[in-house]
Amino acid sequence: MPTNPILEQLLNEHLPALAKTEALEESVITEAIKNGTMVLLANPAHKNVQPTLIGQPASVKVNANIGTSPFVEEPSREIKKLHLAEAAGAHAVMDLSTGGDLDTIRKEMLAATRLPLGTVPLYGCAQRRVKAGAHAASFTADGLFEEIENQAKQGVDFITVHCGVTRRASQLIDSADRMLGVVSRGGSMTVRYMKETGNENPLYEQYDRLLEISAKHNLTLSLGDGMRPGAGVDAGDTAQWDEVVTLAELTRRAWDAGVQVMIEGPGHVPLHLVQAQIQGIKQLCMGAPLYVLGPLVTDSAPGYDHIAGAIGGALAAWFGADFLCYLTPAEHLTLPDGKDVYAGVMASRIAAQAAENALGRPLAVARDLDISQARADLDWNKMADLALDPPMVRHRREDHKDREECAMCGEFCAVKMLKDF
Amino acid sequence: MPTNPILEQLLNEHLPALAKTEALEESVITEAIKNGTMVLLANPAHKNVQPTLIGQPASVKVNANIGTSPFVEEPSREIKKLHLAEAAGAHAVMDLSTGGDLDTIRKEMLAATRLPLGTVPLYGCAQRRVKAGAHAASFTADGLFEEIENQAKQGVDFITVHCGVTRRASQLIDSADRMLGVVSRGGSMTVRYMKETGNENPLYEQYDRLLEISAKHNLTLSLGDGMRPGAGVDAGDTAQWDEVVTLAELTRRAWDAGVQVMIEGPGHVPLHLVQAQIQGIKQLCMGAPLYVLGPLVTDSAPGYDHIAGAIGGALAAWFGADFLCYLTPAEHLTLPDGKDVYAGVMASRIAAQAAENALGRPLAVARDLDISQARADLDWNKMADLALDPPMVRHRREDHKDREECAMCGEFCAVKMLKDF
Repeated sequence: MPTNPILEQLLNEHLPALAKTEALEESVITEAIKNGTMVLLANPAHKNVQPTLIGQPASVKVNANIGTSPFVEEPSREIKKLHLAEAAGAHAVMDLSTGGDLDTIRKEMLAATRLPLGTVPLYGCAQRRVKAGAHAASFTADGLFEEIENQAKQGVDFITVHCGVTRRASQLIDSADRMLGVVSRGGSMTVRYMKETGNENPLYEQYDRLLEISAKHNLTLSLGDGMRPGAGVDAGDTAQWDEVVTLAELTRRAWDAGVQVMIEGPGHVPLHLVQAQIQGIKQLCMGAPLYVLGPLVTDSAPGYDHIAGAIGGALAAWFGADFLCYLTPAEHLTLPDGKDVYAGVMASRIAAQAAENALGRPLAVARDLDISQARADLDWNKMADLALDPPMVRHRREDHKDREECAMCGEFCAVKMLKDF
Repeated sequence: MPTNPILEQLLNEHLPALAKTEALEESVITEAIKNGTMVLLANPAHKNVQPTLIGQPASVKVNANIGTSPFVEEPSREIKKLHLAEAAGAHAVMDLSTGGDLDTIRKEMLAATRLPLGTVPLYGCAQRRVKAGAHAASFTADGLFEEIENQAKQGVDFITVHCGVTRRASQLIDSADRMLGVVSRGGSMTVRYMKETGNENPLYEQYDRLLEISAKHNLTLSLGDGMRPGAGVDAGDTAQWDEVVTLAELTRRAWDAGVQVMIEGPGHVPLHLVQAQIQGIKQLCMGAPLYVLGPLVTDSAPGYDHIAGAIGGALAAWFGADFLCYLTPAEHLTLPDGKDVYAGVMASRIAAQAAENALGRPLAVARDLDISQARADLDWNKMADLALDPPMVRHRREDHKDREECAMCGEFCAVKMLKDF
């Protein structure tokens, strides 16, 4: 793709640091960005943003979704969650607020974090309609593009746009005997909009308008998976793949316009289908960075979807997914609290670490080797330092921190048994 | 294998109920037991024990390790953990106590649970030596067999015996440049015993003596993996496979003696090696039930090893493991508390559910389908009933239980958006 001037400038400024962080040659990064297989998340209007690479062979990144709900509208609660996501090691956050003054919340979040911030602009648009006493899906095309432009100017680094939720895909949902229809909020609003107005999805029909705004701000498009399966049994049906085909076509058009693109992926996918889903989507979309939600390998674990998602996420990242959107223990049940956010980020980081270790990525391999060596040496400080969550290791060792063994084994410590001998 | 008379009698009594629970034909069960690919855990001396099938194609089972440590010797704390393991849905428990009066604790546990109870008799033997002021590894062959016989009489249903930790395997460890040597407590004690005495491992050398005791009580042998990798980088080395080869040989001898056998498996195994490990061990051991600890797909997640273990456990069970030993968040750090036990069992159950769904096992597939249908119907009670942890679902819904949507989405609920339309 022809890079846009803003992206060129960002690379000029940040390439050496990025290469160092990723332990990659500079040319590997520039080549991957040129090919569209890597994106650099950074909108220059986001003050002090930490430009962040997503895509092969950069390290797998983790996103945390936060934001108010129609029932819990306290911005300060969300800022706290933002800081907890950062403390847990998230690489990006999405503000999915739907309650309160969304413009103010978004500006506060942009000011509060250097991490790339993503949004779903349709939510802002829909919330305005609800506040005006109308239905969420009664938005207009102009209203939506204005919202997107406004957010781009505010400094939002990436946006989810459900461009592939077309009338054709919507008809396929109806005819496909799906158990769980549309489970994406943006997707379902778009389907309802299309059914009520008879119009095509404006994000699809007026895609060039979207590309124009995006290029101007180096706003990365995350092409949303509005047709993603919401139950394992729905994975891989016609509506899902129809949308991916559309996203592949839109990826090519974005690249031609110098706009960076990620593809969003599932969703609920049984264990035995994860490989086919991930490799299929990646191949179809010409290697564009893949941003997955889970995948959840079982539908039966509400309260523990961070674990079901970590199982799927580890497999997905091993098979080529680039960006893991966390799931928290609150998924499917309620708005996550701070503890949920922290737990969700950690679960996704474990999945990423496992996948990168399997892929032989040098930084991940070194971490696993070094912490194992520290374990062999019974060097607890080093173990804590190298762990994905150092404070947790120190906390669990607290009662016992002056002893060489742990409180489980004591003198029966297997390592010590043969070490002292 | 020629079944032993006790096993015959247990089957006569319990086969119809077992067939119903497992949704299997009775002949499938008797055939699998005859072939040694399924075991029935139940020692008639364990009053009211719930006979439990482990092995293909019975459902995947989950074990919880509990027990005192040299630092935390309160039996009542362990009985509480036992009940939490039961509440979380464990199918078996192992009493790995090493502190306090082990005989009394074991008897209390046997009386307190109908779940099959496993132990590592070497611990009792070793603790007696420590209490006598000697080193844990200064046990004698006679002392060990007496301990095993005593525990069999008490009603222990299965025991871990590190019969494959031979002098040859021990030499391989020394020559293999392992990062983490022997990480099994029983394994390391046995290695030290062999090095100090120059003797062969009595559980290997006098294996027939073990078989005699086992057959008398339908005590199932869980052939321990004392040489399991304790770091991902150690997975699949000569010492590990040498032990598996020995266990395969010992499996055949147990079958010839009418003794039921499970094989214990790893351990720390990187994601990309799980399939080879599981299928390799199962094949080598002629399909004997495989009991795995994790596997942990990364070494870097102390504090979250239940999640790293759930990733490996899901893959392992999908590839043929039959019995998942849980890992708790306390693994590698300290003795688990009640919360750890509950979290560990749940993580393993999620792994089992994901694997069984992928394998098309009818009960698991039905659960995923039914809970997804409940989700489509916004039927929260049914969702809770079908979830792996119903109380958790109810707890997280508490604030919001009278509303049709969850507290995350409210009027933006994707399901409702198109349902009311």
